[in-house]
Amino acid sequence: MQADKKITLLIKNIGQLITMDGPIPRVGDQMKDIGLIEDGAIAISIDEIVSVGKSDEVEGQSTLAENCTVIDAEGAVVTPGLIDPHTHPVFAKTREKEFEMRTEGRSYMEIAEAGGGIRSSVRHLREASYADLKNATAERLDRLLSYGVTTIEAKSGYGLSTESELQMLEVIAELNETHNIDLVPTFLGAHEVPDEYRDDRKGYEDLVINEMIPAVAKKKLAEYADIFCEKGVFEIESSRRIMSAAKSAGMKLRFHADELACIGAAELAADMGAATADHLVYISDDGIKAMARAGTVAVLLPGTTFSLGGSQYAPARKMIDEGVVLSLSTDCNPGSSFTESLPFIITLAAVQLKLTAAESISAVTVNAAWSIDRSEMIGQLMPGMQADFVLWDMADYRELPYHYGVNLVAKVVKKGKIVVNAQNNGNGRD
Amino acid sequence: MQADKKITLLIKNIGQLITMDGPIPRVGDQMKDIGLIEDGAIAISIDEIVSVGKSDEVEGQSTLAENCTVIDAEGAVVTPGLIDPHTHPVFAKTREKEFEMRTEGRSYMEIAEAGGGIRSSVRHLREASYADLKNATAERLDRLLSYGVTTIEAKSGYGLSTESELQMLEVIAELNETHNIDLVPTFLGAHEVPDEYRDDRKGYEDLVINEMIPAVAKKKLAEYADIFCEKGVFEIESSRRIMSAAKSAGMKLRFHADELACIGAAELAADMGAATADHLVYISDDGIKAMARAGTVAVLLPGTTFSLGGSQYAPARKMIDEGVVLSLSTDCNPGSSFTESLPFIITLAAVQLKLTAAESISAVTVNAAWSIDRSEMIGQLMPGMQADFVLWDMADYRELPYHYGVNLVAKVVKKGKIVVNAQNNGNGRD
Repeated sequence: MQADKKITLLIKNIGQLITMDGPIPRVGDQMKDIGLIEDGAIAISIDEIVSVGKSDEVEGQSTLAENCTVIDAEGAVVTPGLIDPHTHPVFAKTREKEFEMRTEGRSYMEIAEAGGGIRSSVRHLREASYADLKNATAERLDRLLSYGVTTIEAKSGYGLSTESELQMLEVIAELNETHNIDLVPTFLGAHEVPDEYRDDRKGYEDLVINEMIPAVAKKKLAEYADIFCEKGVFEIESSRRIMSAAKSAGMKLRFHADELACIGAAELAADMGAATADHLVYISDDGIKAMARAGTVAVLLPGTTFSLGGSQYAPARKMIDEGVVLSLSTDCNPGSSFTESLPFIITLAAVQLKLTAAESISAVTVNAAWSIDRSEMIGQLMPGMQADFVLWDMADYRELPYHYGVNLVAKVVKKGKIVVNAQNNGNGRD
Repeated sequence: MQADKKITLLIKNIGQLITMDGPIPRVGDQMKDIGLIEDGAIAISIDEIVSVGKSDEVEGQSTLAENCTVIDAEGAVVTPGLIDPHTHPVFAKTREKEFEMRTEGRSYMEIAEAGGGIRSSVRHLREASYADLKNATAERLDRLLSYGVTTIEAKSGYGLSTESELQMLEVIAELNETHNIDLVPTFLGAHEVPDEYRDDRKGYEDLVINEMIPAVAKKKLAEYADIFCEKGVFEIESSRRIMSAAKSAGMKLRFHADELACIGAAELAADMGAATADHLVYISDDGIKAMARAGTVAVLLPGTTFSLGGSQYAPARKMIDEGVVLSLSTDCNPGSSFTESLPFIITLAAVQLKLTAAESISAVTVNAAWSIDRSEMIGQLMPGMQADFVLWDMADYRELPYHYGVNLVAKVVKKGKIVVNAQNNGNGRD
């Protein structure tokens, strides 16, 4: 307790205050411990958490500022702000027609040949103005925030030219300054080979290595580099070459790995000391062991399998059993998974990956924070940390996966400020 | 155009106005035709639709009342208010702990033996006061409305005593008067055999037939009767006996049919002239043919399979091919499917049942209205019909299944009154 700090925001009478106090990151059985305090309170000074604990203790210790806001949680649940560690929110146009083509039985390849897929997003993005792109992205960030997400990792990757990749990263940088959500920028020039390089894939890899990475590094526009390491896209040797260049330029690494086929991408990510390997639907047992040894975080994206109508999900329980650090994400993007609801991903994680509510909450708080190198600031509710948290319209945190497909957020607090304040939208807690 | 009616609400500049003009109900390929008008408008007088068509025509013909509200839809989509034809919204307590037990691998039977299942909802309901039950239900109706649902069918079935079944139906009747949502009441005394009749199942059937049905009929509290016609619950001969009594008492019939095993429940429903048979995961080919011949509506509930972590879904495409009238519902209930989002069910219908957006919209408008005997009032946007509709935050109706797990409702109009008015919550339409 820092006695000199006056309290500007006090939330009391919290039925279940989920602090996530404990190890960072969480592995194995540690994921079940969410640092739950019953009848809790949390006291904020400006943008910083000052005190967390039982209601009477916190209230007894707190000196309220004159204009302090006091909120009675009426027995509801508070969690840290959710963190989404894998998003593609910067795009110009939605792609609902492709979704419908899949419903009608058309394959991903047929759709790509008919002009769809990532390349269609690239065409639209290159035609869009900076302002249109920024406004469209801001609306998606608004919606993410409304579902309790206070920090995201955000990727480029629909530009695929130096100019338009830089533009995407500049949109991300500007929104990180102006929007309530915090964004962690990732350069994903190696998302696909653009049309103009279809017959010269090596030429595109050279462009990424020799022009894009230096330009992005010089402007300090990306903290991470990512790559679609996949059969027929960027295979192992190309991926190693591109990601080595990114690492040399000072970027930390993330991988799209073993999503559609097992090519040893998880092993490569572990071997290169990547922060994360994501998707991992077809990861091998060796890949799981390599990730556990290296401490590479597995970011699972069950919404993508779901939205593509698939039935094969990443082997989450096996990864937990082997000690891999697990996180979860929306994969928010216009092609394979258009959702801003990380809570719905928690439902999918229960239904398809067999993660309990506590395990999923660990995945989208401490473990997600760890994966984006922000553990000292966010992911837990502890004195000294940034005041990012969510008040939920529920009396038991296990309602989060159970009560599905709806928005149970009551309030979102970001850096000590109430940024979402939902009307009572009918939860029937009693 | 009724020239004498002054317009109290005008929505113009509708990018896609989905009128559902055309056959009632829709079968086969008819489900693809949603009566779409581009650049449309809709004019309302008090609670009734007066004019529907192209923006300039509707505006040219309309005489606006002095206090007329004019809304510019800015190119967005308007559909009829959604209709949910199978809900259990009256319950006292949520059951998130059972959901978590299933995540951890416990079976439905183990959970029932540990005190869970329908019987746990019965215990809680019998302990709850009328006021608590009404308030908890009202919050669920608020949420249904916020997802674009303007009319629901609502069942009793957690009371299982004459007194508490009547109480549930009285809650439904009162909320139909006081809440913006319209409710169509269904008596479901034959939902399960209560604990006190475990050793005397025949005794409970007699109670339903000789006491409950007459009491419900006398008070005119139910338009429909429903039954859980299932192996080990109410099997074929018991179901025929109970439903014959309900029919004789003037109730129309709905069935929970072939959800967990194929016992010929669909055939029974068709044979008895039921309005609907619902679930139908294990329906036989003969059952499909019988329903098509009889015109019995198939109400499919993919959320239940999803939320229970199952993989077997009802054979929707086969039913459409055979000419069965198809509808969709949330099955909103505290045990197997706790959601108020009918739009999310449309996503599941695309991903799992392979229904296109147009087919699903037909299912939850004209076909759902038909299934609850309200086709002359709701389900279409036509002059003379009740002014129930939804303005969506999307430019193409195919975004409805595609942009999943989030709420895309901008406004809900019920009987000509704006009852939901969402803030711009970030859709990124451009």
